[in-house]
Amino acid sequence: MQKTTIKIAYIGGGSRGWAWKLMSDLAVADDICGKVDLYDIDYEAAKQNEIIGNSIGIGGFQYSAVRTLGEALFGADFVVISILPGTFDEMESDVHLPEQFGIYQPVGDTTGPGGILRGIRTIPMFIEIAQAIEKHSPNAWVINYTNPMAMCVDTLYHVFPKVKAFGCCHEVFSTQELLAGMLSETLGEKVTDRSDIKVNVMGINHFTWLDKASWKREDLIPMYSDFAEKHRQSGVSPKVRPDAEEQMMFSSREKVKFDLFLRYGVIAAAGDRHLAEFCPGYRYLRDPQTAESWGFGLTTVDYRRRRQKEKIQEAHELTSGKRKFVIDNTGEEGVRQIRAILGLGDIVTNVNLPNRGQISNIEPGRVVETNAHFTSCAVTPVVAGPLPPAIHGMVNLVSDNMHVVVESCLRRDLDGCFTAFLNDPLVTIDPARAGELFEKMLSNTDKYLDYYK
Amino acid sequence: MQKTTIKIAYIGGGSRGWAWKLMSDLAVADDICGKVDLYDIDYEAAKQNEIIGNSIGIGGFQYSAVRTLGEALFGADFVVISILPGTFDEMESDVHLPEQFGIYQPVGDTTGPGGILRGIRTIPMFIEIAQAIEKHSPNAWVINYTNPMAMCVDTLYHVFPKVKAFGCCHEVFSTQELLAGMLSETLGEKVTDRSDIKVNVMGINHFTWLDKASWKREDLIPMYSDFAEKHRQSGVSPKVRPDAEEQMMFSSREKVKFDLFLRYGVIAAAGDRHLAEFCPGYRYLRDPQTAESWGFGLTTVDYRRRRQKEKIQEAHELTSGKRKFVIDNTGEEGVRQIRAILGLGDIVTNVNLPNRGQISNIEPGRVVETNAHFTSCAVTPVVAGPLPPAIHGMVNLVSDNMHVVVESCLRRDLDGCFTAFLNDPLVTIDPARAGELFEKMLSNTDKYLDYYK
Amino acid sequence: MQKTTIKIAYIGGGSRGWAWKLMSDLAVADDICGKVDLYDIDYEAAKQNEIIGNSIGIGGFQYSAVRTLGEALFGADFVVISILPGTFDEMESDVHLPEQFGIYQPVGDTTGPGGILRGIRTIPMFIEIAQAIEKHSPNAWVINYTNPMAMCVDTLYHVFPKVKAFGCCHEVFSTQELLAGMLSETLGEKVTDRSDIKVNVMGINHFTWLDKASWKREDLIPMYSDFAEKHRQSGVSPKVRPDAEEQMMFSSREKVKFDLFLRYGVIAAAGDRHLAEFCPGYRYLRDPQTAESWGFGLTTVDYRRRRQKEKIQEAHELTSGKRKFVIDNTGEEGVRQIRAILGLGDIVTNVNLPNRGQISNIEPGRVVETNAHFTSCAVTPVVAGPLPPAIHGMVNLVSDNMHVVVESCLRRDLDGCFTAFLNDPLVTIDPARAGELFEKMLSNTDKYLDYYK
Amino acid sequence: MQKTTIKIAYIGGGSRGWAWKLMSDLAVADDICGKVDLYDIDYEAAKQNEIIGNSIGIGGFQYSAVRTLGEALFGADFVVISILPGTFDEMESDVHLPEQFGIYQPVGDTTGPGGILRGIRTIPMFIEIAQAIEKHSPNAWVINYTNPMAMCVDTLYHVFPKVKAFGCCHEVFSTQELLAGMLSETLGEKVTDRSDIKVNVMGINHFTWLDKASWKREDLIPMYSDFAEKHRQSGVSPKVRPDAEEQMMFSSREKVKFDLFLRYGVIAAAGDRHLAEFCPGYRYLRDPQTAESWGFGLTTVDYRRRRQKEKIQEAHELTSGKRKFVIDNTGEEGVRQIRAILGLGDIVTNVNLPNRGQISNIEPGRVVETNAHFTSCAVTPVVAGPLPPAIHGMVNLVSDNMHVVVESCLRRDLDGCFTAFLNDPLVTIDPARAGELFEKMLSNTDKYLDYYK
Repeated sequence: MQKTTIKIAYIGGGSRGWAWKLMSDLAVADDICGKVDLYDIDYEAAKQNEIIGNSIGIGGFQYSAVRTLGEALFGADFVVISILPGTFDEMESDVHLPEQFGIYQPVGDTTGPGGILRGIRTIPMFIEIAQAIEKHSPNAWVINYTNPMAMCVDTLYHVFPKVKAFGCCHEVFSTQELLAGMLSETLGEKVTDRSDIKVNVMGINHFTWLDKASWKREDLIPMYSDFAEKHRQSGVSPKVRPDAEEQMMFSSREKVKFDLFLRYGVIAAAGDRHLAEFCPGYRYLRDPQTAESWGFGLTTVDYRRRRQKEKIQEAHELTSGKRKFVIDNTGEEGVRQIRAILGLGDIVTNVNLPNRGQISNIEPGRVVETNAHFTSCAVTPVVAGPLPPAIHGMVNLVSDNMHVVVESCLRRDLDGCFTAFLNDPLVTIDPARAGELFEKMLSNTDKYLDYYK
Repeated sequence: MQKTTIKIAYIGGGSRGWAWKLMSDLAVADDICGKVDLYDIDYEAAKQNEIIGNSIGIGGFQYSAVRTLGEALFGADFVVISILPGTFDEMESDVHLPEQFGIYQPVGDTTGPGGILRGIRTIPMFIEIAQAIEKHSPNAWVINYTNPMAMCVDTLYHVFPKVKAFGCCHEVFSTQELLAGMLSETLGEKVTDRSDIKVNVMGINHFTWLDKASWKREDLIPMYSDFAEKHRQSGVSPKVRPDAEEQMMFSSREKVKFDLFLRYGVIAAAGDRHLAEFCPGYRYLRDPQTAESWGFGLTTVDYRRRRQKEKIQEAHELTSGKRKFVIDNTGEEGVRQIRAILGLGDIVTNVNLPNRGQISNIEPGRVVETNAHFTSCAVTPVVAGPLPPAIHGMVNLVSDNMHVVVESCLRRDLDGCFTAFLNDPLVTIDPARAGELFEKMLSNTDKYLDYYK
Repeated sequence: MQKTTIKIAYIGGGSRGWAWKLMSDLAVADDICGKVDLYDIDYEAAKQNEIIGNSIGIGGFQYSAVRTLGEALFGADFVVISILPGTFDEMESDVHLPEQFGIYQPVGDTTGPGGILRGIRTIPMFIEIAQAIEKHSPNAWVINYTNPMAMCVDTLYHVFPKVKAFGCCHEVFSTQELLAGMLSETLGEKVTDRSDIKVNVMGINHFTWLDKASWKREDLIPMYSDFAEKHRQSGVSPKVRPDAEEQMMFSSREKVKFDLFLRYGVIAAAGDRHLAEFCPGYRYLRDPQTAESWGFGLTTVDYRRRRQKEKIQEAHELTSGKRKFVIDNTGEEGVRQIRAILGLGDIVTNVNLPNRGQISNIEPGRVVETNAHFTSCAVTPVVAGPLPPAIHGMVNLVSDNMHVVVESCLRRDLDGCFTAFLNDPLVTIDPARAGELFEKMLSNTDKYLDYYK
Repeated sequence: MQKTTIKIAYIGGGSRGWAWKLMSDLAVADDICGKVDLYDIDYEAAKQNEIIGNSIGIGGFQYSAVRTLGEALFGADFVVISILPGTFDEMESDVHLPEQFGIYQPVGDTTGPGGILRGIRTIPMFIEIAQAIEKHSPNAWVINYTNPMAMCVDTLYHVFPKVKAFGCCHEVFSTQELLAGMLSETLGEKVTDRSDIKVNVMGINHFTWLDKASWKREDLIPMYSDFAEKHRQSGVSPKVRPDAEEQMMFSSREKVKFDLFLRYGVIAAAGDRHLAEFCPGYRYLRDPQTAESWGFGLTTVDYRRRRQKEKIQEAHELTSGKRKFVIDNTGEEGVRQIRAILGLGDIVTNVNLPNRGQISNIEPGRVVETNAHFTSCAVTPVVAGPLPPAIHGMVNLVSDNMHVVVESCLRRDLDGCFTAFLNDPLVTIDPARAGELFEKMLSNTDKYLDYYK
């Protein structure tokens, strides 16, 4: 069989997470080949990844670090965007400064004060990226992994309306795995491929919901109802992770998920750490004890920093040949999506796209997450339907808010962003205090705010 | 000129508030005449109103207390619904029991725990009324004054989809008066008729917003912006009321209104006591001190009881001839609306109707408040437009919630109502405590819950 | 009372029809005054109108012919657009050339081959006007009287989306008069003011429909049903006109209107000559005999030329003082609309505006005709509702087609216009012949097509 | 592997076309088994099919003819509806009587006079079927093959809104084959599986359109543009059929398809014989010569009768064992759809479903044809998008019309059907003549009209 030759531009090509996963998946893809241009503001990191990528030894891809965005994009068939907007210093402020004001965020990169500030920092970068894509590779397919997902994808479409962009996230996959576990526990059925659990996805990224779930002939909703009831008190055992600290930081007993189902009758489909951030602050995040009682961890930036150091170390070892790159079953779908778009096998999976009818009661144009059909030259959302009224209000509120942030940023209006900040369900504090917090957070990320000046 | 002869059915015809206002307005309407049938579960109260109505001496209407709903409705051209659902005992529970759980409600009849419980109690009554209208007077125009407004009107349309019902409320009028006051303060212009202040109304009852306001050639939004800024700290002087207690209970310095405008750029158009109830509980209603600092009163049911006693006394005096009925300029629009529908003079004013496009980003069918054109045989909403995104989330959340209450009640599902209860922005307490509150509130209104059993 | 002072820019200010009507209505308006700048590509005609306008002697307006569009627009509060796009030579081709191909058009200025060609000629003029308004008077209210109405208004909004433009047409008024006549014939009621007949208007200009009509308490639809049945064969007596030729040219026995009602149950509300042009060509316009059998005339351009000559003569007499300007009750609503926008008295009447919900089953943005509320600083459409399915298809087809013409013209794509030409319901001929006709018609209007080259 | 066991109810189980295809496809499906209950008003025909089905010898299905609809439906997992509504006598009238009035129909079973009359006859049957499904197998998946497709599916959903029904048609498949042929002719590429040609389907059954078509990385629209241009005069060689008469009757040179593409820029995706019936009658069906010049045949009912005789003969031979049932690659997708719904392999293919957003500019609830995702327990349409304006009018017109027929039939209103009849694009004749035709056609199908009496 002849392989299909493509060029991928990787923006954030110095990444040590997503980039390595992509390398792994590309290495085992036997029907595509070509080159991957790695662009990163940290050129050295991209260069390391060039070395690592080219060291893998199998698969048909060549990696090159390039010095400009334009060079990376020129001639690209696919563009992958996976950047870290700012450093962990800014993220420290996003996640932890609000704690001094009584606002706790387990992740802090999507919504809440942290998500909004990260958005304010990231949107100017995405404006620049969108303009470069329009100029250098207007026909390329653009895959975004960067958070805050909805704001990033929204910005791409605002700046370059014809962009063929979509945003990918694996949170729903874990819920499919949870359902697989439930099948095992309940029926003794082993479902080895989580994608055999079929779900109808609707919502916004990290606050997605499933109103249908099935496996073969089995409607899984009634079974989940019993399962949630059974585990509501103690939750399920969290996934065991190699590292005790990681265990604590990323822990989830799925109790938030069960609570949301038992209230609303619809399956919340993201990690509990994310879900909690979209609900009113007094529910799951009143204080650290409340979070703990719900069985999920509050991930610290400090921990992320240590993890990063390890990754940097790992990169050195991989570059120097001390360590060998291990090809992994990453569980990610990026390469399957690329192959589908190339006509090498359809898939239906969840992605983030502007709403053009897939969710009938969210306004057109808003970036929503639903299933979509990936096929030759096309990514087409399915009609996920209306959000049930009991959850529609919550989802819509945050979608409105993210939209206000994007529109405000595009017109360089930080006051408009503060309106959204105050509307955020986690901001349950006094407006004057909220204003103080917002100003401090802005000041902490000041070096990324030239666009607004 | 020949007068137009009509029959009005007044449901809640023992009312000592709205009924007397209607009598007053009918007395001075010189182009209509006919009869008003007063129906009330308290027949004696209706009988008193019959005597009072017939004692007025001017105008062309005869009043009769009738013993059945069917008798009142039969042959009616117009049906007015203005009932007190339950007694002040139930309202005491609606408004004040939540205080023991830290939830404060200045009114408690529209939204929040009180509004939801009142809805649960009222909806079965409206089911019965809708069925009776369908049977006895399907072509009559139905004017509702009862709260919770949106739930009541929604119920009428659910049960009898062809009903020609609309809901009236005068809260917007006060905002027009505030704007008139602003014109006087700012330009020295005296606007004697508040309806000369033209406004575009959008929202749900008691949480209505004006994105446009003008007077003659003047766009009032920029002027209001300055006005709100000027008065944000101290508010405006509250309307002077004859009674010091009433003064305190209904007081409003409009500070909530100014705060909402300064955040969102759109004029909130209802009394501050109502507006505060639709916002997250921690904003204006964290505790009584917070309410006080925002300059509005928390109306007690005790006060309402005393007012009612005075009204009963007044009714006795009116019936016995000790006191003469005083015809008043009530400022209400019911009679103007009736006349418009009879082809006696068009008006455009705000009413509550199912959404069929007047607010493009609220779901079809939801009861919303916008302007409508009242004319011969027709009440047609105007296209108020989309709610701006910064307020859409809040308005939609409550609209979703009220819809969940109505749908749950119609299928006799009180658990469904609890879902809405927990979603309410005032219910910032622990879910378990919220459940306890809900159960107690239900128990306090138990004698009105036969429908659900 | 103090008068409100305004400036009106009249584009097409040499007009001898609409301009004189406006002068007449302005002369008797006792609460407004100011100046009217007359701009016309025929400066002499504008100059004549300046003299005529200033000769009237009553009212508070001064007229001045100006030499540039910018001068007219500068400082304008209102802009009136009433131009003749091209000369009667072009209109001769629009209306009569298609006859050689078997296509008959009673008017030929709105739809059909004539309407499309007129659109192609007019749209570049409206692009220029819209740009000038954006530059010189972006806040002015713009009233368009020019045909093809929907295409003209659509162009204004495409080029300058914030334009405050609406299109006015009096065709619906005649249907109100027909209904008044019906009331007189049926009930002996004299309705002296046609605006007392209340109607719900929906459709596109010249193909408008009334699903509701009432007078006082009377629903007129059942009465119209009998009336249409009674007169279906012979029609009603046409309005008597002073001139026998005009009588023949503009004659209508309303038989098309009755036929459409008896088929669809909805009142068609425009002159029969217009209505016939929107229906498939084989219905009312198969040949001149068919038109005659339906009782309506085919207006010739030759006749229009003679009328114009008379008007020019009349203008000379008015200018020279030989004839005195007679103030007339024109029945037009332009001045009432201007007064309403100035806050001098609300009205609800039908106008052409982009759809933003007033007709739920026509796409957003399309220019549609419905009622709107005119009030201080605002023109707000009412929710006319969905078009009934039996007429929706016909109305939507032509709306789609006009939209295709506008979009094609804006991108200078005459082939796109031909697609619309072939889709037109009057173009029942062979595509090759239709192509030949289109080319000839284009060639006949060639001097106005520079924009496309 | 364990097979999944199902029960299929086949309504119209005496069918000699679709039933045999289903048998063939079930025979080779190696992962499902069970029973097929055959119900037909012609019990003997069902009985024959029982014998034939059970004679096949491979596959896991048992066939039984049953005497009642209820018996067939009871316990069914899937219901297949493939009935001939009436006999060829009625179809003779549907197709050929209009010819005496100058109206020609190549098929006459979907739209046009024939389609409407067939609808009037079929809708009462589908009302009965829908009621029986609601009673006996409310959770079954219902696959309809009967024409007029949109009206049949619409009726099922009107009568039993929770029905899980969809309509299948293979017309789009032929267009995929045409595109495969084009690839072969143009690039020398052999595409052996037409489903590798990926298309975005939008429209109504038999009047479907493709705005996107691709194969692997190739956008096929530009290639089709050249292909249509090249073949516009002579068309392509028609598919060779075994029988010369069939060849003539079903012939198509695809010239209508090319003409439609060259006008509108979108690929029409149904046989030319169908497409022509949806366009104004004067385009492709002015007279038999016009049809011939466009290279497609007018299928006579006489021919269908002869074919049926052969099929009856074939059935006898199969029953008696004289002839052996040949398992065929039918190209149909029914069994693949069933398997997908059972969780045995997802597919995305085109089906007819009520619109809930898949086509944004057709009204909600209308039965439209688009792609849908078939997966475990679900059939979910994809967002096909808006129909381009140049074709939207035509498609919408016929959709409106079919909707008027269904709604009229449901309220037993044949006058309402005549309104649709007159609106049909093929009915270009005088209304009085059309009335005569309609009455005659009704009379010819009178024995199936008891429902309306």
